[in-house]
Amino acid sequence: MFAPARPVLLGHEDRASHEKDTMSQDATLDPTLSSWVASANAADTDFPIQNLPFGRFQRDGALRIGVAIGDQILDLQAAGLIDHQDMRRVLSLSTADRRALRASLSAGLAEGSAQQAVWEAALVAQSEVRMALPCDIGDYTDFYVGVHHATAVGKLFRPDNPLLPNYKWVPIGYHGRASTVNVSGHSFKRPMGQLKAPDADAPHLGPTQRLDLELELGIIMGRGNAQGEAIGIDAAEDHIFGFTLFNDWSARDVQAWEYQPLGPFLAKNFASTMSPWMVTLDALAPFRKAFAHPADDPQPLPYLSSEANSQQGAIDIALEVYLQTAQMRADGVAPERIGQSNFADAAYWTAAQLVTHHTVNGCAMNPGDLLGSGTLSGTTREQAGSLLEMTLGGKEAITLGNGESRTFLRDGDTIILKGYCQREGFRRIGLGECAATVIG
Amino acid sequence: MFAPARPVLLGHEDRASHEKDTMSQDATLDPTLSSWVASANAADTDFPIQNLPFGRFQRDGALRIGVAIGDQILDLQAAGLIDHQDMRRVLSLSTADRRALRASLSAGLAEGSAQQAVWEAALVAQSEVRMALPCDIGDYTDFYVGVHHATAVGKLFRPDNPLLPNYKWVPIGYHGRASTVNVSGHSFKRPMGQLKAPDADAPHLGPTQRLDLELELGIIMGRGNAQGEAIGIDAAEDHIFGFTLFNDWSARDVQAWEYQPLGPFLAKNFASTMSPWMVTLDALAPFRKAFAHPADDPQPLPYLSSEANSQQGAIDIALEVYLQTAQMRADGVAPERIGQSNFADAAYWTAAQLVTHHTVNGCAMNPGDLLGSGTLSGTTREQAGSLLEMTLGGKEAITLGNGESRTFLRDGDTIILKGYCQREGFRRIGLGECAATVIG
Repeated sequence: MFAPARPVLLGHEDRASHEKDTMSQDATLDPTLSSWVASANAADTDFPIQNLPFGRFQRDGALRIGVAIGDQILDLQAAGLIDHQDMRRVLSLSTADRRALRASLSAGLAEGSAQQAVWEAALVAQSEVRMALPCDIGDYTDFYVGVHHATAVGKLFRPDNPLLPNYKWVPIGYHGRASTVNVSGHSFKRPMGQLKAPDADAPHLGPTQRLDLELELGIIMGRGNAQGEAIGIDAAEDHIFGFTLFNDWSARDVQAWEYQPLGPFLAKNFASTMSPWMVTLDALAPFRKAFAHPADDPQPLPYLSSEANSQQGAIDIALEVYLQTAQMRADGVAPERIGQSNFADAAYWTAAQLVTHHTVNGCAMNPGDLLGSGTLSGTTREQAGSLLEMTLGGKEAITLGNGESRTFLRDGDTIILKGYCQREGFRRIGLGECAATVIG
Repeated sequence: MFAPARPVLLGHEDRASHEKDTMSQDATLDPTLSSWVASANAADTDFPIQNLPFGRFQRDGALRIGVAIGDQILDLQAAGLIDHQDMRRVLSLSTADRRALRASLSAGLAEGSAQQAVWEAALVAQSEVRMALPCDIGDYTDFYVGVHHATAVGKLFRPDNPLLPNYKWVPIGYHGRASTVNVSGHSFKRPMGQLKAPDADAPHLGPTQRLDLELELGIIMGRGNAQGEAIGIDAAEDHIFGFTLFNDWSARDVQAWEYQPLGPFLAKNFASTMSPWMVTLDALAPFRKAFAHPADDPQPLPYLSSEANSQQGAIDIALEVYLQTAQMRADGVAPERIGQSNFADAAYWTAAQLVTHHTVNGCAMNPGDLLGSGTLSGTTREQAGSLLEMTLGGKEAITLGNGESRTFLRDGDTIILKGYCQREGFRRIGLGECAATVIG
């Protein structure tokens, strides 16, 4: 345990941290630490005092910056921790300053804190506000790190040679559309697109018949880099602010017809959905794992290799996909889990490798840029992160507990992504929820 | 000729135009109209009073909105035409309001205008300021409308079947990187990337050996659309603000290794260069042409077809590529033209079709979004818009007037794109210049 610190006020001039040495990172992760916000002490909360993820909520028509604690949100400006509502400035904090802010939050929210009397007035119930996207997204890149997903999808097209030769050398990625990334809770329309059956002479315009989800994590960039300057592998994590859940909805029939030779376009850019809370690398620290390519695979090129990346590049994040159909909703049936996987098992590249690869050519990253991981699937159909995999390309429907079946999504279907980390000796933390419903 | 109108002040509340009927579009295009800004009356200026393109320049550390006139810039706020410096609001003007603003500009800058005395103080010489990007770019999409380019590039890989089956049905496009779009005049570093020779066992990291240019036009979006709402073909041009020159630099060796299966990524996102002036559709009106696919080709699907698009969907914009090597610069040798083409001849799809296709799935467009046309090449090597085509994939170097030769770009090479429109009975207008130098 530790003594509550004076809160850090991060103001107009982001100050160098002089508190980083007075409040170790470990103290905020102490599993015995409890909060005077009672709901944060519940065993099943995603947001115990050890998590402290950042997000934005709407109040009086404006966006405000908050941190989730139990079923509450601490309004950072009302708590006197920041003097603005510009998430970009929070994202731009140095690692030391971000940790100092986290230490102040932890100390102030801890049981017995002198801040309690003041900060109680800075709490708002999550149930009483609408969340917004956690930040303004500049550029959005989607990677393809899910090696089992890439293999399974490749097999549908190339049974003998599912992974292309570059896959184990290059963290494959492509640019996505930032303007249609929505926060969890926004429904979206089933998109129209050019569709062409294999035996048809010509395509026609119609609503997609093969609407799919993609179970991903979103990596939110913190401090950026200047154009022309690469971010080395050992500096990469200093540029990552946090993680969200991310659903990269996909129209598989549109994709099949349009994607050659330049990649996915309208098949993906009609909507993506992001969870509202950015869980920081600080909160994820206990769940880091060693990272290595299989011994028979090519080892990463030197610019993608480092001791730290090998020792703890991976992150053990359990991921789940739930489906609730309109029928289930009408019948009061809870969402049913249809897939589960784990970031550490699914990803062929680490977050640091993605940042370093993305900038090795001098590409400029800005605070709030989004890196999607790509679909995170395990090796079995039960561990799939997309219906494409669960149904073997739409050939074998999955059957739900109420007798309904699905190959691809129908109007009224809600998909909910969840994610959490747990490890003996640490408090379980969660990433919250990433939910959206397709409407006709 | 027409009587000068009172200037329109477009202020905090963008007003509906009540002047659109008092000042016809044609009046601003009257070729006999001259300006009290003498340089605007020179035969070879890109910016006669008939053009009036919008851009942003830097003054006292801030960005200001201006309109090019001859070798000057009219500062719109200093001239009393706007009361802010937010280009997004200018881009968001309705077509009627944009035309009203144009009419006020034309009237005020015309020979004999009562505005002259006041507006002279609102002029700044282009040579005395640095231009910025004409707007903040939200999302950037690069299309592939250059059918001769797509055919020539396709031939390098698939001699018998250069165009993929979707090309003549789908306006092929993909998302690009907005954070690295620079205004003309910014040098950029030769990018590093993973390179793999066909006979090498493994890739290595190194500077690209096949750095290329791409001659493109940039379409700047005006008013946006809400997510989930498509922009129909007949409304599409109301959402286009104007055109720029655009160079989508490409590292061909990086591209060849990385692009399967999700398209170009680091091969393109290290830098793009845009000319500083947005030439409006109003100024381009005299240069519109009929548009049609060849009779033997598939006709566009109904959502991409309209009477207006057929009658005047194309735009006759002459395009040129100039190269000046470091040696030429040292010797005082002027840039040498190495390619020339024409938007109307090169493009398989119209600007309106690109906007409509992009939004048919409900994708949201915002003011300042950028649509690159893709490389605009003619049918011959002299009409190529990339070195890849000029040199047949790097196999046959081009020889310059001073005896130097090039397959791909060397450090110190400057590429300058130019564009202009001319037609009997109208004043020639230009798009300015899009120049940048690669440095080692």
